[in-house]
Amino acid sequence: MFNTIDYVVNEQIATITLNRPEALNSFNEQMMEELIQVYRKADQSDDVRVIILTAKGKVFCAGMDLSTGDDVFESDESIEEFRDTGGRVSLEVYHVKKPVIAAVNGAAVGIGATMLLPADIRVFSETAKVGFVFGRRGIGPEATSGYFLPRLVGMSKALEWVYTGRMIYSEELITSGLANHVAEDAYEKALELAKEIIENTSAVSNSFSRQLFYKMWEAEHPMDSHLVESKFLHWASREKDVKEGIASFKEKRNPRFPLTTSDLPDFFKGG
Amino acid sequence: MFNTIDYVVNEQIATITLNRPEALNSFNEQMMEELIQVYRKADQSDDVRVIILTAKGKVFCAGMDLSTGDDVFESDESIEEFRDTGGRVSLEVYHVKKPVIAAVNGAAVGIGATMLLPADIRVFSETAKVGFVFGRRGIGPEATSGYFLPRLVGMSKALEWVYTGRMIYSEELITSGLANHVAEDAYEKALELAKEIIENTSAVSNSFSRQLFYKMWEAEHPMDSHLVESKFLHWASREKDVKEGIASFKEKRNPRFPLTTSDLPDFFKGG
Amino acid sequence: MFNTIDYVVNEQIATITLNRPEALNSFNEQMMEELIQVYRKADQSDDVRVIILTAKGKVFCAGMDLSTGDDVFESDESIEEFRDTGGRVSLEVYHVKKPVIAAVNGAAVGIGATMLLPADIRVFSETAKVGFVFGRRGIGPEATSGYFLPRLVGMSKALEWVYTGRMIYSEELITSGLANHVAEDAYEKALELAKEIIENTSAVSNSFSRQLFYKMWEAEHPMDSHLVESKFLHWASREKDVKEGIASFKEKRNPRFPLTTSDLPDFFKGG
Repeated sequence: MFNTIDYVVNEQIATITLNRPEALNSFNEQMMEELIQVYRKADQSDDVRVIILTAKGKVFCAGMDLSTGDDVFESDESIEEFRDTGGRVSLEVYHVKKPVIAAVNGAAVGIGATMLLPADIRVFSETAKVGFVFGRRGIGPEATSGYFLPRLVGMSKALEWVYTGRMIYSEELITSGLANHVAEDAYEKALELAKEIIENTSAVSNSFSRQLFYKMWEAEHPMDSHLVESKFLHWASREKDVKEGIASFKEKRNPRFPLTTSDLPDFFKGG
Repeated sequence: MFNTIDYVVNEQIATITLNRPEALNSFNEQMMEELIQVYRKADQSDDVRVIILTAKGKVFCAGMDLSTGDDVFESDESIEEFRDTGGRVSLEVYHVKKPVIAAVNGAAVGIGATMLLPADIRVFSETAKVGFVFGRRGIGPEATSGYFLPRLVGMSKALEWVYTGRMIYSEELITSGLANHVAEDAYEKALELAKEIIENTSAVSNSFSRQLFYKMWEAEHPMDSHLVESKFLHWASREKDVKEGIASFKEKRNPRFPLTTSDLPDFFKGG
Repeated sequence: MFNTIDYVVNEQIATITLNRPEALNSFNEQMMEELIQVYRKADQSDDVRVIILTAKGKVFCAGMDLSTGDDVFESDESIEEFRDTGGRVSLEVYHVKKPVIAAVNGAAVGIGATMLLPADIRVFSETAKVGFVFGRRGIGPEATSGYFLPRLVGMSKALEWVYTGRMIYSEELITSGLANHVAEDAYEKALELAKEIIENTSAVSNSFSRQLFYKMWEAEHPMDSHLVESKFLHWASREKDVKEGIASFKEKRNPRFPLTTSDLPDFFKGG
């Protein structure tokens, strides 16, 4: 079904695996198209509660595939029409309505680094490293990293990393906040988190939280949050999940929430 | 005067204490009304320089009072009229013009966790723990936490905490930045900070700083800050506090600033 | 050429040195004018790749020069016309199109602290200390610190530091994120970073990254970043730097990028 990636759903967890280990999982136009398709598919499927992005082999992603020559970034489109391929994937991830976890097992460089940013949670293996190397290639931030990187690690780190283009290792990944966790095996840790999410929290709650939090980055006042939180709470208070949430709490057992993501009305029109 | 809280002013420090220890200080409609009243009262009183929020007993606040049944979140109001009770308190705290310190002595869960977010400074005891558990109950972020939580701890932590609904302990409270301090006794540490503030800095300066910093989260350009900083500086330069500030500095003694919060003009109309 | 500062360009690194050590490098109107001039000069010169701000002597900057009396903050201008002197410098730094590193060798207090905030990277010596002391003088945040401080260190730290006006030392400078690095010699570390930048990354890339990241702090959606990243990438893909970037990568050598900052079109009109 896919050539550059692998897609498996198991126990409500969708795993998207970059699958060109012989080319260090380097990014090309086909990988872009397949990633857009697969994120959309995972988002729309009610069998999927959590999405994990990972990669096959020792390298997560070596960046843009440069084997085709030094015109790899050139396009026949005009400057008005042209859209960065990495950014098209990032915008798709931004619109996903489910938790997205990136599990990074090795080097993530260039688009391999920036494709991690619109994930919600990032887990790295102890031997992983990350490089925002655009400046070393004479290009610039892509994949909407101009938006995400300063928000995730702060302006000072973001600019130092980009100005130098140097590699970042596990300790700095943690202290900067880019990593939620560093673990011996990044994918195992991501699976553990995904299971913790599925066992404990409601799909519609998580979907609303994801949309709310990203949208509120751009709020002009806490009142913006208050109004939409109130609407969701009013809706949720009459649904089955809250009954199960309170019952399971009182009975000291794990909840079994009946609702799925597609039951959630759109509280963020046009977002 | 109050049934669910206690209110004491001592040495210019107002202490608001959640006072339903027999019900684990759980939140209900009366507590909402009393908190709104008491924040307004403390804000308007010139006898008060700093506000501390704390709680009686071993638990800070166990969340919404669920003893009334599983319809606790339901309201007779329409979805257009309904306003989340926690958010109504948070918006009141947002509009306070004085330093607000939360001193958390034990478990703070649900609305017990989110009511901490609009405070300026958070101090936790070593045994305190925090849980953003809405997803475990089938509801969503409330008390304007959609606005505050990603800003205070970063998007990655905020989403991990909400997706899992798990408890957060002292080490993570510090590394995430949710805690300014973890201390053996949270209230003692909060008192120490309040005294340090009162002894050293001007009430009008602090009031302006609080309003400026929150407002500038939403600025579109540093010029927005420059214009209002300039107006305040022009005003302050002719007032008695600056004379006392410079004199006390030159005389190497603590200042005794004559101005009170109510002397401060409104530099942020409508905010 | 300058009276209050010193300016030297060496190996494409411009060093601006506060040069009133006999007055603890305290800030006055002439220093403001000279800093504005020198930042503009360094920004416009194609001989300069990186700008370092540092100071002569054991104190970085003791704040506003209070030797002229307690009317130092007063101005003959009206409240509508008056513009904070520190803010005028900060806005100049904000508009610089090159990496700016602050190297702080000693105490940085008041305007000495706030003038550091619009730099991209801050390096402190182990004995440096920082104080946001406006509240102790009866004035308020200046030099656009209302905009920068909460963004750089988070709201909780920013308010605690300003409310207390206390000094901040090396450990807290690092954990808060205000410091990128603490080193035995701040200027040596800043030089090392400047050289790493010059040896490895493209001037137009860095210039675009700086403008993008600050502008995107105010974005309303990642789409804003996607559109301008795409335009830059389209432009850069046809330029000589990308050819050199890919060639040097394949040949495993340092790049020698031909373009200079003035080759970069304005992708952010009016910014």
